Amino acid sequence: MKLKINVHLDYLLNAPADLLLQIEAASMADQHIDRARIDVPGDGHFARISGEEGIGERIWLHREGQFTADYSAIVDVSRAVNDCRVMEQMPVHQLPGDTVKYLMGSRYCPANAFQSFVSAEFGTLSGGARIMAMRDWIEDSFTYTPGASNADTTARDTFVQRQGICRDYAHVLITMARASAIPARMASVYAIGVEPQDFHAVAEVYLGGSWQLVDPTGMAPVDGIARIGVGRDAADISFMTVYGRASLQAQTVQVERL
Amino acid sequence: MKLKINVHLDYLLNAPADLLLQIEAASMADQHIDRARIDVPGDGHFARISGEEGIGERIWLHREGQFTADYSAIVDVSRAVNDCRVMEQMPVHQLPGDTVKYLMGSRYCPANAFQSFVSAEFGTLSGGARIMAMRDWIEDSFTYTPGASNADTTARDTFVQRQGICRDYAHVLITMARASAIPARMASVYAIGVEPQDFHAVAEVYLGGSWQLVDPTGMAPVDGIARIGVGRDAADISFMTVYGRASLQAQTVQVERL
Amino acid sequence: MKLKINVHLDYLLNAPADLLLQIEAASMADQHIDRARIDVPGDGHFARISGEEGIGERIWLHREGQFTADYSAIVDVSRAVNDCRVMEQMPVHQLPGDTVKYLMGSRYCPANAFQSFVSAEFGTLSGGARIMAMRDWIEDSFTYTPGASNADTTARDTFVQRQGICRDYAHVLITMARASAIPARMASVYAIGVEPQDFHAVAEVYLGGSWQLVDPTGMAPVDGIARIGVGRDAADISFMTVYGRASLQAQTVQVERL
Amino acid sequence: MKLKINVHLDYLLNAPADLLLQIEAASMADQHIDRARIDVPGDGHFARISGEEGIGERIWLHREGQFTADYSAIVDVSRAVNDCRVMEQMPVHQLPGDTVKYLMGSRYCPANAFQSFVSAEFGTLSGGARIMAMRDWIEDSFTYTPGASNADTTARDTFVQRQGICRDYAHVLITMARASAIPARMASVYAIGVEPQDFHAVAEVYLGGSWQLVDPTGMAPVDGIARIGVGRDAADISFMTVYGRASLQAQTVQVERL
Repeated sequence: MKLKINVHLDYLLNAPADLLLQIEAASMADQHIDRARIDVPGDGHFARISGEEGIGERIWLHREGQFTADYSAIVDVSRAVNDCRVMEQMPVHQLPGDTVKYLMGSRYCPANAFQSFVSAEFGTLSGGARIMAMRDWIEDSFTYTPGASNADTTARDTFVQRQGICRDYAHVLITMARASAIPARMASVYAIGVEPQDFHAVAEVYLGGSWQLVDPTGMAPVDGIARIGVGRDAADISFMTVYGRASLQAQTVQVERL
Repeated sequence: MKLKINVHLDYLLNAPADLLLQIEAASMADQHIDRARIDVPGDGHFARISGEEGIGERIWLHREGQFTADYSAIVDVSRAVNDCRVMEQMPVHQLPGDTVKYLMGSRYCPANAFQSFVSAEFGTLSGGARIMAMRDWIEDSFTYTPGASNADTTARDTFVQRQGICRDYAHVLITMARASAIPARMASVYAIGVEPQDFHAVAEVYLGGSWQLVDPTGMAPVDGIARIGVGRDAADISFMTVYGRASLQAQTVQVERL
Repeated sequence: MKLKINVHLDYLLNAPADLLLQIEAASMADQHIDRARIDVPGDGHFARISGEEGIGERIWLHREGQFTADYSAIVDVSRAVNDCRVMEQMPVHQLPGDTVKYLMGSRYCPANAFQSFVSAEFGTLSGGARIMAMRDWIEDSFTYTPGASNADTTARDTFVQRQGICRDYAHVLITMARASAIPARMASVYAIGVEPQDFHAVAEVYLGGSWQLVDPTGMAPVDGIARIGVGRDAADISFMTVYGRASLQAQTVQVERL
Repeated sequence: MKLKINVHLDYLLNAPADLLLQIEAASMADQHIDRARIDVPGDGHFARISGEEGIGERIWLHREGQFTADYSAIVDVSRAVNDCRVMEQMPVHQLPGDTVKYLMGSRYCPANAFQSFVSAEFGTLSGGARIMAMRDWIEDSFTYTPGASNADTTARDTFVQRQGICRDYAHVLITMARASAIPARMASVYAIGVEPQDFHAVAEVYLGGSWQLVDPTGMAPVDGIARIGVGRDAADISFMTVYGRASLQAQTVQVERL
């Protein structure tokens, strides 16, 4: 599936500020960048650095006054839509070293606290069957409610409140996966099917020796997703981090099937 | 300085369990392993994987019944004792890609919440001078109190309660450093001067283009520390993680200057 | 049912300390004190004050060195064992003024956070039927696990961790009741059936115009319970609060059916 | 000082809802209601109940569609402006029974967590001198920042973040007072000097055998404050609690010196 992506950011910086921008779709085996253009006007510092796990890139900027960024791309997603339910989980002692960090608790994902719950609720299942049962449970139990969460909301809070947005859904699935000894991380993505259109976030779980995309909100089809970057949770994958103050003027994200 | 390290772990596993062990001093430019021996009896699975950032190694094990591990080593620490106070902090937009993750919030270090405090209290300082002022503030403000914290205690809790152990001291310094746009991570270490003798944890801050060890408890001298591994915070650097249940039978850690 | 109660407390105070003691069964319409004796040796200050809601009494003490308290009583509990399931909940706008405080969030019971959950899970039920369904859900979902909680553990934590002791079970039921617009408070009690024998805590919910005892641990029968005091949650009903430091020497609580 | 108060509330209720309204200045010895009028149009249920501690009144309402309330009053405040700094704190063991609840932790005021901090920072002071030193510390350390806190923000959060609004300032002072064994509660008030004009919240501390008003934001003079109601913290003193959903249409609060 080919995705056509258009992003426009417009912020006002009251004082000179450093910014970390991560809005470009990553070039990866299962998502080929047919065409892409990023336009970040201004004279200040501009430096590309690698994203986490070498996936995608971030841009360091120093800017002041009006800050705009425009990104457009055509991304060709050629991703097998695997039936996760039949994929097996690797015995934890066989996990490769670079997946171990995704077993641990992170800012929004206090995995240890969920061990009793996942054992009691999903203890008869393992691997992909367990992940998909947890995914279904989340979609059934939670209500997608913009405004119900904030930058302090953890998986613990969302699990109690039963509402949130994509980041919160993903945090709970990631937390439950880790509590099940399945490595899980978060991906910031562009995806079709997201309503209202915006930056989106999904989970990635390590099954059968590779990372599988899972969207616990049920909005995005696996082959309609283009990753921007990955990380432990929302703390790692902001599309923009400002060291200073920025006021939003305008922001649009458009993703459509070509 | 040469350190002589002896560790003995003895646990009882009620059922077959996977374990992730990280107790060996890492071989690094500033700490040379003169001699080391690890003894983990038993027939089950044993596999070495790399530690975070390629520093040190972890061992995956599958064991049941009595589990013991013995580790002894002579480590030659040849680390310059830098005067951190004169070291400069890199402008955040110049930070290399592999340090960026250490700016972000993590399980025990909610960095964003501390921005107002660090600006108000340490805003006139930057770089190493700021780190050392924060280190001094922590040592002055907190009381080293075993039993006052637990596996859920975050830097936010410790900052309020004003007491804790090495992990808590390190979490607060790491959180304040990140809130100051200085990358900071946690190192599990062996060190002289630690009372009572045990595994120890300190902070590492990125100053002047390299990582500097800082012990906010004030117990360990910089050249009397041998790193085991590093990570974002205590969630990453446990000396042992058990997937199952283990009861402590005996445990000793001895570190002495040779 | 007649309960025979014997309590022995023995603590060591390193320095002169004020203590607030609440260990005597309250004299109430449904629990008559046949005989009681409290013995708190020492010369310092001793003053009785009323418990919350005029239920029971607390004793202010000033003591130093060894502190002992012995309490023995025969309490005649003549409480109707109502079928809560048929009791109706009062429309919230008809609740009397003195029950309103028990609708609000308290230290361990953040009621607002649970509104979505209780609506989704118990929304078809109201009044006593809802309370008993919540009670059954708690007993089914949680594991009674001494040591899994501490003095910081809230209903939110327990709801995630699915384990705790009587205080934690009661906190979750109280929180869910308040989130259902049913006033709920906590009672410290003596009760038969509690294993291991100790001070016990249960919930009281306001149904059909009166307070009904409910034990979400399922250990204590309604007519085998003698209230000591009531409050919003565990913050209000400690059997002993020490303003200073006390070390436990010995403590026994015995409750038996006479 | 005479205060002229005008309040206008205008909300839209999508469905029939119960409301608990508490917006009338309380009649008390130090604040006499010269004239007052409340107008709550509509046919549904209207019942007055007493406020906490018998201070002020709340109104239970059942309404649907547009909900408006208008309140106007002239309140004659004849309150001695005591110099709190010379007032003594009662030895904790002499505190009367009805103040004890205000020593305990509450929803937003986890008093135990602050004991080390208050001992270290204010340990040489007691009574009113300590309260005023804590009040000054709060005013110096915090920045009044609308939007920085929400309905989940506790004194612990505010203490770390160093910003908030009147409720947050009051929560921290109340928490520190309780951690100092001084009973403290929260009062919702009308006051002159509040910018922007709105419902206001201050602390009341129990010194020298009576309750003293203290405004840690420094905005309101003690003799320019008219209490509406009191409670343990913000959980108890909302001007309006809706059991259902309400959308704000308009709201104004005007308080002026007559």
